[in-house]
Amino acid sequence: MTEPGAIVVSEADSAALVNRELAFEAVRDAFLCLSDGSGQLNPVVMAPGITAGDTFSLKSGSASAAGLLGFKCGAYFTGADALDLPRHSSNTLLLDPVSGRLQAIVGASEVNCYRTAAANAVAAKTLAREDASRLTVVGAGHQAWYEINALAAQFELEQINIVSRNASRAQALADSLNQEPGDVAVMLLAAEEAIPLADLLVTVTTAREPLFPAELVQSGTHVSAMGADQVGKQELPVELLNRASLFADLPEQSLRVGEFQHVADEGSEGRMEITLLGDVLAGKAAGRKAREEITVFDSSGVALQDLFVARRILDAYLSQTGAAE
Amino acid sequence: MTEPGAIVVSEADSAALVNRELAFEAVRDAFLCLSDGSGQLNPVVMAPGITAGDTFSLKSGSASAAGLLGFKCGAYFTGADALDLPRHSSNTLLLDPVSGRLQAIVGASEVNCYRTAAANAVAAKTLAREDASRLTVVGAGHQAWYEINALAAQFELEQINIVSRNASRAQALADSLNQEPGDVAVMLLAAEEAIPLADLLVTVTTAREPLFPAELVQSGTHVSAMGADQVGKQELPVELLNRASLFADLPEQSLRVGEFQHVADEGSEGRMEITLLGDVLAGKAAGRKAREEITVFDSSGVALQDLFVARRILDAYLSQTGAAE
Repeated sequence: MTEPGAIVVSEADSAALVNRELAFEAVRDAFLCLSDGSGQLNPVVMAPGITAGDTFSLKSGSASAAGLLGFKCGAYFTGADALDLPRHSSNTLLLDPVSGRLQAIVGASEVNCYRTAAANAVAAKTLAREDASRLTVVGAGHQAWYEINALAAQFELEQINIVSRNASRAQALADSLNQEPGDVAVMLLAAEEAIPLADLLVTVTTAREPLFPAELVQSGTHVSAMGADQVGKQELPVELLNRASLFADLPEQSLRVGEFQHVADEGSEGRMEITLLGDVLAGKAAGRKAREEITVFDSSGVALQDLFVARRILDAYLSQTGAAE
Repeated sequence: MTEPGAIVVSEADSAALVNRELAFEAVRDAFLCLSDGSGQLNPVVMAPGITAGDTFSLKSGSASAAGLLGFKCGAYFTGADALDLPRHSSNTLLLDPVSGRLQAIVGASEVNCYRTAAANAVAAKTLAREDASRLTVVGAGHQAWYEINALAAQFELEQINIVSRNASRAQALADSLNQEPGDVAVMLLAAEEAIPLADLLVTVTTAREPLFPAELVQSGTHVSAMGADQVGKQELPVELLNRASLFADLPEQSLRVGEFQHVADEGSEGRMEITLLGDVLAGKAAGRKAREEITVFDSSGVALQDLFVARRILDAYLSQTGAAE
């Protein structure tokens, strides 16, 4: 047999194929596979580029039951500015689980925004009160739109409050939500006003210290902390974690580089329970136990999410182009 | 700007473009870049496949002066047998050093055989006696042909001795060398006969214990140990290392997973000197100091070799297809 060639799904093609439903289902599969033991994650490589500050990462894994194997190569390069390209870019590479050959290269930059927001949506759908209708988002960067969009598909939102130190970015985000008058109210508020209003509270920043005091968060709120993914990053006050039920895509990683690094001692020593979200989805662990409970989900990101999303994009691409898989 | 697409150089194309001169020059550049400080290597990922025993690896690095950045994805999958494909396969992926985008995907399975043999050829050319003419190779697996072929380009060989426990494989290798009668004598010999004859001694096996006793190796021999690249592998007797001058592509890696792991204490504690081959090429360190000296080069393989080879393959591909880089 001659060596098979890899299928290339360009960034433009994958960006056209991805949508929030596809991402939601794929990320849900990834969470479940972390619960059923069929998921395998390998050590992450964080590598420097050539210009100081540039980095690329290799995040690999496999899902045996799904026959999925591969890795995401993510990059953050400041030189992209001069080319009028985003600094962040990603590709997910799938290997054939039988032959080990490169099966597909899937552009994953736009896909990555959907995938991260889908993790939030799956977690919120699983942990928040069903009738949650007031969303507060802290952070108005590129990712915030995707987070709001993903939650809007799962909840009947009546109110979206945006908190940002950058007023013009917050205004641009509000404008981009294209709300119909009288349907969803989008407001730009200070944290002191917006946090107590939230049924759903999403933090999506690169903060390195708590974004607000713990006492602003009302009983019954679900919090998705999307930002922390490195040592030193922090969005939530420790006092909030102390009075909440904690969930994570991968507890071990959350304790190391995610939001829960700031309660790592309590977490590792078992004085604070952190539940694998996949276990809640699989019915092995409880999610929200009471209406008044505060639930906190920390997303630090796992390669399995990328693999499951890339597989669905590849399937959609092949079915569109008429090729049999 | 729209997202640029990656250039795909298929396995068939790269196999047609690679040759021993290209590999020799590229690997030489990689050795030099390890000496001048412009090379960066990241931790290696060794990952399991889905079937027990299958593995894939991600070996990444960069060469700042050369503007090279990327990684090799290597795989060993037993399921390839059923598809009539080799178990080993590799692809090297280059990233654009400015934008971080995936620049090229270069099939690297055949290329990898040339690249590994080129490391041997560069080392032997640098460390062996100039008039070395008798080559003994221990091991008659797939890689042996490439090793012999690469050395034959650098030395005026009169004699090639093949040592293998597998007589039919050894015979097949001898036949494949296509020697012209009276030009180079190819013989299948036992280690006791073949080792003492060698000016150049190459071990290219998956052995986990010494292949021959140290006293068989004559003064003045250059030894290239190509096999050991994992904890537990070993081709040479420790007594040989004790009386030889030692060189490596990457001393730290050789002490950890290469041939020199078996003298790791002596090496790490400075009681045994291991010289970076790149330093010899750059004129910063001495190579062979006397005709009677035994020199040993351990090749454990570094990603920079793959990146420099892939760059040259890509350049050749682009110049062939008429595309400007």
